[in-house]
Amino acid sequence: MEFFFRPQSVAVIGASHSPSKIGHQILRNILSYGYKGKVYPVNPKGGEILGKKVYRSVEEIPGDVDLAVVAVPAPLVPEVLESCGRKGVKGVAIISSGFREVGNRELEERVVEIARKHGMRVLGPNIFGVAYTPARLNATFGPENIQKGKIALISQSGALGIALMGWTQTEEIGLSAIVSVGNKADVSDEDLLDFFDSDPETRVIVIYMEGVHDGRAFMEAVRRNGKPIVVIKAGRSERGAKAAASHTGSLAGSDLVYDGVFRQVGVIRARTVRDAFVMARALSELPEPRGENTVIITNGGGIGVLATDAAQEEGVKLYDGPDLAAFRRVMPPFGSFRNPVDITGMADVDSYMGALEIAQANPNIHSMALLYCETAVCDPLELAEGIKRTYDGRKPLVVAMVGGERTEEAIRALNSAGIPAYDAPEDAVRALKALYLWKKYRKKRSKQFADTQ
Amino acid sequence: MEFFFRPQSVAVIGASHSPSKIGHQILRNILSYGYKGKVYPVNPKGGEILGKKVYRSVEEIPGDVDLAVVAVPAPLVPEVLESCGRKGVKGVAIISSGFREVGNRELEERVVEIARKHGMRVLGPNIFGVAYTPARLNATFGPENIQKGKIALISQSGALGIALMGWTQTEEIGLSAIVSVGNKADVSDEDLLDFFDSDPETRVIVIYMEGVHDGRAFMEAVRRNGKPIVVIKAGRSERGAKAAASHTGSLAGSDLVYDGVFRQVGVIRARTVRDAFVMARALSELPEPRGENTVIITNGGGIGVLATDAAQEEGVKLYDGPDLAAFRRVMPPFGSFRNPVDITGMADVDSYMGALEIAQANPNIHSMALLYCETAVCDPLELAEGIKRTYDGRKPLVVAMVGGERTEEAIRALNSAGIPAYDAPEDAVRALKALYLWKKYRKKRSKQFADTQ
Repeated sequence: MEFFFRPQSVAVIGASHSPSKIGHQILRNILSYGYKGKVYPVNPKGGEILGKKVYRSVEEIPGDVDLAVVAVPAPLVPEVLESCGRKGVKGVAIISSGFREVGNRELEERVVEIARKHGMRVLGPNIFGVAYTPARLNATFGPENIQKGKIALISQSGALGIALMGWTQTEEIGLSAIVSVGNKADVSDEDLLDFFDSDPETRVIVIYMEGVHDGRAFMEAVRRNGKPIVVIKAGRSERGAKAAASHTGSLAGSDLVYDGVFRQVGVIRARTVRDAFVMARALSELPEPRGENTVIITNGGGIGVLATDAAQEEGVKLYDGPDLAAFRRVMPPFGSFRNPVDITGMADVDSYMGALEIAQANPNIHSMALLYCETAVCDPLELAEGIKRTYDGRKPLVVAMVGGERTEEAIRALNSAGIPAYDAPEDAVRALKALYLWKKYRKKRSKQFADTQ
Repeated sequence: MEFFFRPQSVAVIGASHSPSKIGHQILRNILSYGYKGKVYPVNPKGGEILGKKVYRSVEEIPGDVDLAVVAVPAPLVPEVLESCGRKGVKGVAIISSGFREVGNRELEERVVEIARKHGMRVLGPNIFGVAYTPARLNATFGPENIQKGKIALISQSGALGIALMGWTQTEEIGLSAIVSVGNKADVSDEDLLDFFDSDPETRVIVIYMEGVHDGRAFMEAVRRNGKPIVVIKAGRSERGAKAAASHTGSLAGSDLVYDGVFRQVGVIRARTVRDAFVMARALSELPEPRGENTVIITNGGGIGVLATDAAQEEGVKLYDGPDLAAFRRVMPPFGSFRNPVDITGMADVDSYMGALEIAQANPNIHSMALLYCETAVCDPLELAEGIKRTYDGRKPLVVAMVGGERTEEAIRALNSAGIPAYDAPEDAVRALKALYLWKKYRKKRSKQFADTQ
C-alpha cells in the first residue's frame, strides 16, 4: 500500500492543458503542494503542461513509476491499465467514473482483473484521489492546500470528502492523509486500516462510511489495529440507508448490527462529521488519562452548568475531593471551588494559569476541561498564550471558549499549538469522553488480539 | 417595561473615568453604539467623562430620566434608589452584584421595597445590562457592537450572556435585544416574555435559563405569548442542577417536569446554545410551511444521506411523488431525482437554480433544504448570489454548505441576506424541524389561549 502514499514517482495519465479538466487539476495540485518525487504527465498529444514534459504513454517514461493516477474516460481505462502493467507500475488510483456506480459492473471487473494479472493494486474507481501530507503529496482534484496533521481521513463519499479538505483547513484540523475509496473495487477499508496502523505519521483514523463490503474482514482489521478509529456511519435510518444504496450501492444492513459491531470491536461512532473531528482532534493530540477524575474550570457559571450536564450525560466523571479547596487560592470569595470550579467572571489570565497549575499538580485529577466566556478582564488571545506556556502536556486538557472574533482567533491559536479547543462546552466534554472511550476500547482490542494469537 | 428598551433618556449612575471600570464601559457602549436619546453620566465627583457633563446626583439632572443604569457598590444601591425614586425614574437596571447571589437577601429585599414604594421597576441586580438594537441602545458592559436582528435573548447567566454578544456577531446572528436578568428580584422572565410578545421588532425569543421562580406564572406567560420561544434549560442532570443551584440559586426541579411543561405549553427546547440559535435563525426569518413535504436538493450523495438520517430522526417528512421526476431536467443521467434529489457533483450554479425553481413552483413541496459540497464547478459565493436572486421567500428554505474559506463566506452572505445557512446538514434539518414544531405549538397556544378566555 506504501506506493499510494509514499511513491517515489507519480504519473498523471490523462493530464490536460485545460484548467477545467480534472487531469489538469490533479497535476497542478501535485506540483503546487510541493511533492518532491518525480512527476510525469501522460497524454497522447505530448507537449508540455505546467512546465512539465508530457509523455505520450506511461511506457515512454524513462524511470520507474510507483503510482499512476488515471483520469481518462472509463472505456479507455482497461487499455491504460494494460500499459501501466507492462510498465511495472505498482499502484493505480482510478479517478474516472462510469463503473459499478452507474451499473457498469463488467467494466469494473475487467479493470480489476487486468490489475491482478500485472500485480498492481487499484484504488477506486470513481474517486477524487489520494493525499498524504508527510510526503507533500496531493494527488486529488480538491483544494490545493491541506493542513498537515495526524488524522487520516477515509471517505466513501467523493463530494463530501473534497468539501472536508476545505473545511478541515478553515477549522485548523490537521490531516496526515485523505483517501477517497470510491467503489472499493480492490483496495478496501481493511487495506487502508492496516496501512494507517503501521504509518508513524497517523494517530487517529476517521472514516466516512455508508457500508462495508465484508463485515467480518472489517472487524478483523479493526481488531488488529492499534489506533483509535472514529466512524461516521451514514444510512442510520431506513430512508438514509435507501439513499446510501442509491448513492454508493452500499447494502447498509441494519444500523443496530453496525452499532453492535462497532461496540464489540472498539470503533468510536460519531453521529456527525463535526462530532467525528471534535473527538479525533483530542485523540490525535492528547495523552491517555491515567484515571477517570475530570475537573472543570470556568469563569462562567452558566457554561459550567452546561458542561456539567454534558459530562453526566456522556458519562465523564467529575472529581469531588477535599483537595479541590486548593482552587480557593485563585478565586474571589464568592467563587466556587466545588467541581465545576468557578473562578468567576473576575478571573484574569493569572487566575486561569493558577488554576491550571493546581490541576496539573494534583495527582487525583486526571483530565481537565477549561472553559472561558469572553470578558473584558481576561483577553482571549492572552489566555491562549498563557495556556500554551503553562500546559505541561502530561494529562489531557481540552478548552472551550465562547466569545467574538478574538475568541475565535484564540481557539485557532490553541488548536494550531496542539491543544484541542472548541467553541462550545459540550464539544470539550465530548472530546474527553472520546479519550475515555478509547482507553476502554484499546484494552479490549489488545485483549481480543491476544485471544486470537 | 418599555423604558428598559426604548427609554427617552438614560442615566448611568456610577459612571467612571477609568476605562477598566464597568461604569465607564456601559457609558462608552451607550455612546458608541449610537443611542439617540439623552445620556447623563452621574458621579458625585462631577466633571466630564467621554465628552459628557457629569451630574453629581441623579436629582441634579435637568430633564426626565426614563432608565437609570446603576453600577455602584452594593451597599450604596438603596441610597441611589431613593434618589432615583425622588427623581421620578421609571426603570432601574442594577448592574451591581453582592445581593442574594452571595447570600445578601436582605439587601436585595430592601432594594425592591424602595423601588415599589416609588413605582419603579428593577431589572437585576447582578446583571451585565440590557440592549435593544432598534433603539441603538447598548447599556451593557459587553462588546460595543451588536448585530441587529429579530431574536431577543434573555440570559440568566452573566458571563455566558456577554460571551454570546460576541459570538452572535461572528456567527451573523441578529438580535433585537439582549437582557441580563440576574437575580430576577423584580422583573421576571414573564415580564420580559410579555414585552417581547408585544414588540414588533422581535420575532423569536431565546432564553438561557437555569430555573424559573414561579412555574405557574411562567406557563401562563408562555400561553398568552404569540411568538416562538426557544429555551436552553441548563441543569438537566442531577449534578448540573446542583451546579446551577450554586451558580444562580435556582431550584432546578426535576428535568422531567420542565420537559413536560415545555411540551405542554409549547416551548421549543434546545440542548445547546448552538442548537438554540440554529433554530431561532430559521424561526426568525422563514415563513411557516403550509404542509409537511420537505425536499432535499444536494450535489453530494454523502451529505444527502446524512441529511436524510437527520430528517428521519427529527421527524421531518421527506416528500415522495411522481412529480419529483421534474428534477431530471437539472441533473446528468446518473443523478437521482428521488428525494434526496442528487443533482451530482457536476452541478453548477444553473443546475442549483433550476432545481430551486422547480421546488418553488411545485405546490406539493412545502419546504426545501439545499445542500452543497464545495466543488470546482460550482463556486460557493456565486451559488450564494444565485440563491439570493432566485429564492422567492414563499416557502421555507434552509441551506447547508460544507467547504473551505469561500464557503464560510458564502454562509455568512446568505445569513446576512436573511436566508438561514449552516455548515452542517444536520443543522439545516433541525432548523426545518423547529419550523414544524412551532407550527404545531402555535396552534396549541392559541387553542389554550382561547380556552382560558
